Amino acid sequence: MFVSTNTAWLDKMSFETEINGHFIILDADTTVGGDNKGPRPKLLMLSALGGCTAMDVVSILTKMRVADDIEKFNVNVGGELTEEHPKHFISMHIRYEFTPKPGKVLPLEKLQKAVDMSQEQYCGVSAAYRKAMIITSEIVIL
Amino acid sequence: MFVSTNTAWLDKMSFETEINGHFIILDADTTVGGDNKGPRPKLLMLSALGGCTAMDVVSILTKMRVADDIEKFNVNVGGELTEEHPKHFISMHIRYEFTPKPGKVLPLEKLQKAVDMSQEQYCGVSAAYRKAMIITSEIVIL
Repeated sequence: MFVSTNTAWLDKMSFETEINGHFIILDADTTVGGDNKGPRPKLLMLSALGGCTAMDVVSILTKMRVADDIEKFNVNVGGELTEEHPKHFISMHIRYEFTPKPGKVLPLEKLQKAVDMSQEQYCGVSAAYRKAMIITSEIVIL
Repeated sequence: MFVSTNTAWLDKMSFETEINGHFIILDADTTVGGDNKGPRPKLLMLSALGGCTAMDVVSILTKMRVADDIEKFNVNVGGELTEEHPKHFISMHIRYEFTPKPGKVLPLEKLQKAVDMSQEQYCGVSAAYRKAMIITSEIVIL
């Protein structure tokens, strides 16, 4: 399947990118001529991975009848960049943070199963990135 | 350098991701239980590449004193996904579209130089993706 997005110049270092009919402003930091009107493009790479695996995990945990017991679910993705140009990610770490609803206990083995299924079978962003860098993950129940 | 983004579950398949202090809604398509309140995470990968190289090119063309003669600049990034799970990008193509201001002529060799410098020296998204897939590009003056 072939998919695409379009990114149009607004002014200075700011651009508007269209994805699935939704519009997002991208901009550079003020230290490099931008106005910080939107996120840096490179960091979209982290949220692409976070969003992709987060949707997998919610979908799997819903089928496992675990999702209803979750109060909060955050996916924090950190990445290590090279010091030299072109500055690019050489590793990423995914931290899956679950908060149970009051009085509920989240079964760690099911959370781990959902994360493993996403990382090994479903998440296409992870599959692409793993060819280029190391991806690690951890699960935290708060 | 270590950087990160956080993606928080809202409801169903929708998430809010925070990047550089900016918030973007991500959501799945209605065919897979989402409400299309925001873009699909995987497609952020295309806009990460488009935005990254677009900022490089504007920055370089500004130094070359070419940017003032540009009426419009669009970067369209298309990607080919595998048919099998995990569905992931195996190639991307970047189309740089320039429209000159009325009465102005854009020098193709300078546009090509700016694109080459971005792809070979500056764009960290491209540097990471090239380890995982084929990246091609073309320049079109409209």
